[in-house]
Amino acid sequence: MPQFPPHLTFALVPPRNFSSISRDLVAIGRRFYARGWVQGTSGNFSVVMSRKPLRLAITASSVHKGQMRAENILQIDDSAAPVGSRRAVPSAEARLHLEIVRRRGAGAVLHTHSIWGTILSASAPQRDGLKIDGFEMLKGLAGVRTHEHSEHIPIVDNDQDMVRLAGVVGETLDRNPDAHAFLLRRHGLYTWGDTLADAERHVEILEFLFETIGRSATFRPAGGEGGVHHGSIENF
Amino acid sequence: MPQFPPHLTFALVPPRNFSSISRDLVAIGRRFYARGWVQGTSGNFSVVMSRKPLRLAITASSVHKGQMRAENILQIDDSAAPVGSRRAVPSAEARLHLEIVRRRGAGAVLHTHSIWGTILSASAPQRDGLKIDGFEMLKGLAGVRTHEHSEHIPIVDNDQDMVRLAGVVGETLDRNPDAHAFLLRRHGLYTWGDTLADAERHVEILEFLFETIGRSATFRPAGGEGGVHHGSIENF
Amino acid sequence: MPQFPPHLTFALVPPRNFSSISRDLVAIGRRFYARGWVQGTSGNFSVVMSRKPLRLAITASSVHKGQMRAENILQIDDSAAPVGSRRAVPSAEARLHLEIVRRRGAGAVLHTHSIWGTILSASAPQRDGLKIDGFEMLKGLAGVRTHEHSEHIPIVDNDQDMVRLAGVVGETLDRNPDAHAFLLRRHGLYTWGDTLADAERHVEILEFLFETIGRSATFRPAGGEGGVHHGSIENF
Amino acid sequence: MPQFPPHLTFALVPPRNFSSISRDLVAIGRRFYARGWVQGTSGNFSVVMSRKPLRLAITASSVHKGQMRAENILQIDDSAAPVGSRRAVPSAEARLHLEIVRRRGAGAVLHTHSIWGTILSASAPQRDGLKIDGFEMLKGLAGVRTHEHSEHIPIVDNDQDMVRLAGVVGETLDRNPDAHAFLLRRHGLYTWGDTLADAERHVEILEFLFETIGRSATFRPAGGEGGVHHGSIENF
Repeated sequence: MPQFPPHLTFALVPPRNFSSISRDLVAIGRRFYARGWVQGTSGNFSVVMSRKPLRLAITASSVHKGQMRAENILQIDDSAAPVGSRRAVPSAEARLHLEIVRRRGAGAVLHTHSIWGTILSASAPQRDGLKIDGFEMLKGLAGVRTHEHSEHIPIVDNDQDMVRLAGVVGETLDRNPDAHAFLLRRHGLYTWGDTLADAERHVEILEFLFETIGRSATFRPAGGEGGVHHGSIENF
Repeated sequence: MPQFPPHLTFALVPPRNFSSISRDLVAIGRRFYARGWVQGTSGNFSVVMSRKPLRLAITASSVHKGQMRAENILQIDDSAAPVGSRRAVPSAEARLHLEIVRRRGAGAVLHTHSIWGTILSASAPQRDGLKIDGFEMLKGLAGVRTHEHSEHIPIVDNDQDMVRLAGVVGETLDRNPDAHAFLLRRHGLYTWGDTLADAERHVEILEFLFETIGRSATFRPAGGEGGVHHGSIENF
Repeated sequence: MPQFPPHLTFALVPPRNFSSISRDLVAIGRRFYARGWVQGTSGNFSVVMSRKPLRLAITASSVHKGQMRAENILQIDDSAAPVGSRRAVPSAEARLHLEIVRRRGAGAVLHTHSIWGTILSASAPQRDGLKIDGFEMLKGLAGVRTHEHSEHIPIVDNDQDMVRLAGVVGETLDRNPDAHAFLLRRHGLYTWGDTLADAERHVEILEFLFETIGRSATFRPAGGEGGVHHGSIENF
Repeated sequence: MPQFPPHLTFALVPPRNFSSISRDLVAIGRRFYARGWVQGTSGNFSVVMSRKPLRLAITASSVHKGQMRAENILQIDDSAAPVGSRRAVPSAEARLHLEIVRRRGAGAVLHTHSIWGTILSASAPQRDGLKIDGFEMLKGLAGVRTHEHSEHIPIVDNDQDMVRLAGVVGETLDRNPDAHAFLLRRHGLYTWGDTLADAERHVEILEFLFETIGRSATFRPAGGEGGVHHGSIENF
């Protein structure tokens, strides 16, 4: 695995135009749809267009991610209100994207609904997080330089009140400054990165780890001593 | 997840022509084939062309859904008899499509045969339904506005007598007015929507939930208290 | 599910030319490769070109099925010797194809190596077959008209001596006149049909059923009474 | 399954040009990405360009394998230093590729990160290898002529010190002269071949076997005596 630098400041993110970003989000939609991570119009994606004033390119609500077109991407301001000429309803979870961008300085935010993310987040209602350690794949997370890393992924209870949920997400991010992602319980994954490519890499790595841990949970090989114990659901 | 409106009346469905609908059904066939939901020529799809008189565009019998062409779509009347110039045998299950269209005012009906739908429908021969609750993904079902929703999916015993089975399906739909779908035991899923896009979204959501519940059934994570308990097979 | 006619006599198979058949086999190779059924150059496919004299179009040995080209298909005679202008080594298992064509009057034979077929064939070394009953998907097998069908799939011990193995396969086919397929233990599936499309449909149906039964083997749903009991490994 | 010759000497590998090799590596990246074996920019691939002096074409560090282009392949010398006009950082694991090329005379080396390889390598921390026997698919490994073959796949502890790890890999290769591959613990698979096609075939075969053994670990069929016992984690 390659090593990736720790969180860069947003000053390093080169300016890009809206149509180029829209095309990239459409391509990500196709790739994630092919993997089964955005079924049933679920999932939403955003990229920071500018910081001052804050502007995000974000997927419109209710769009099939496998058939999305550039016209399904719109721009919002720092209150999640649409700006610009494309008239569409932004994703209901736009406030969560804004919260992540503000607290982490992220350049891109991706939200997916995967089978294994859902199973792991649902499997222990009393616990507030997932710990994953010892896997080489962890080195694909920004700033991680060794497989001897322990990643804590907070699990936040799902909520339909987006203002309240954004507040809980903000506090969770502050309490877990090293986390590269969080899970909404029985809902899905949020992760981010300095660039859209970084955020996509984080999705791929975390989904790989979720599936590895999920499939390992009942695994007892012939001739082996037991299961795989490098993922756990716990409080922290 | 976006929120979708409750069942619209059919007056809102815009008129569309047969060749456009045929192309859309061919595209759905390719997508479902890629996911493994219509193996071995299984599955059948329909769209309402007109209400008075009732006309459905429906897939012909015995067609490979991954290689289907527009010529494999035909039109039937309210007795499941072919009408129009394309001469082909309609799906043997056309009567079930008609029953759903009449009882629910659906604009499109999709039937799939998935691994997980088959496993769940087969897993408890004495039970008459599947209950799924607490998942964000449920919000993709028309009219559902919160993850705190409990979806009851009736399981109907399979039957080769299509007239008799259509009768049982009709009664089941009437007894479960809020159901968005039903399963035929050891056979597959029927779901529907105001539009073909709505019906496809329902297939994707229900298959996601079937797989999540199916994979969770033996899941016991290290460090967690137990499995996932947001799906069950029960009588209702 | 549609109903398919029982085994037709070969007189009904229309004559087709070699380049058309080669193209069809190449397309099947791509589809099966995408599903993971012919990894590592495994699997081989054949179509009857003529009966008198017996000529088969068959995949060459050691070809990657996802990257196969028409030039990788050759013709063999009734002793598995290559005939015609394309010079290549036929599949080592050509004798098994010939045995099936002779005993069943098949027009096409397909051999795949799937994960679930391998697991099921390996799971009970003392047993000589797999029984599958009660699934609608069974109706896709030629001549089966109801889900209340019990399909017996013989499991034959693997053997590197192709003359000896062809003899055992021949006896097995004679002892199981209703079987639509057999498994070679820890090796893979053989199935066939009057046409190549019939044989492909049989592969898709049997792989669906293998995966359904395989995944069901440890399945115990919350709220249900127990696992799925419509597949078993037994002697017959 | 076809039979493949034992390790050829490198004299038999025909000379090929860099742009042709780069295109082949790009195509392998797409195929492996589609299978989920190189998520999150993981994995790296190399091909021997010349022996004297030793030159490898190898994937650059941190490249998304599904979107890789020919420009992402560079050349390195026998100390893993880049040579030639393309300026990029070679994969951090280039030294492992060189070690394999030297000890085995391999013409191509492929490294993948799969779910099942990770699970198997993680499942028994005290054991130093995986034994697989009795599967027809083993015949796809170079030089193996019967399914009655027992393949020992060493498991090497992961290490971020590439010089030290290369030393351990070299010793492991010498101690296991018949091994076609090794696993890095909680990291991934290394395999190789005389040609790139041979190495890709080895990846496909080993991933098939890992998944078969992994899925078999909890498999207890109805009517069968027990699980599949043709894979084990053990010391050797």
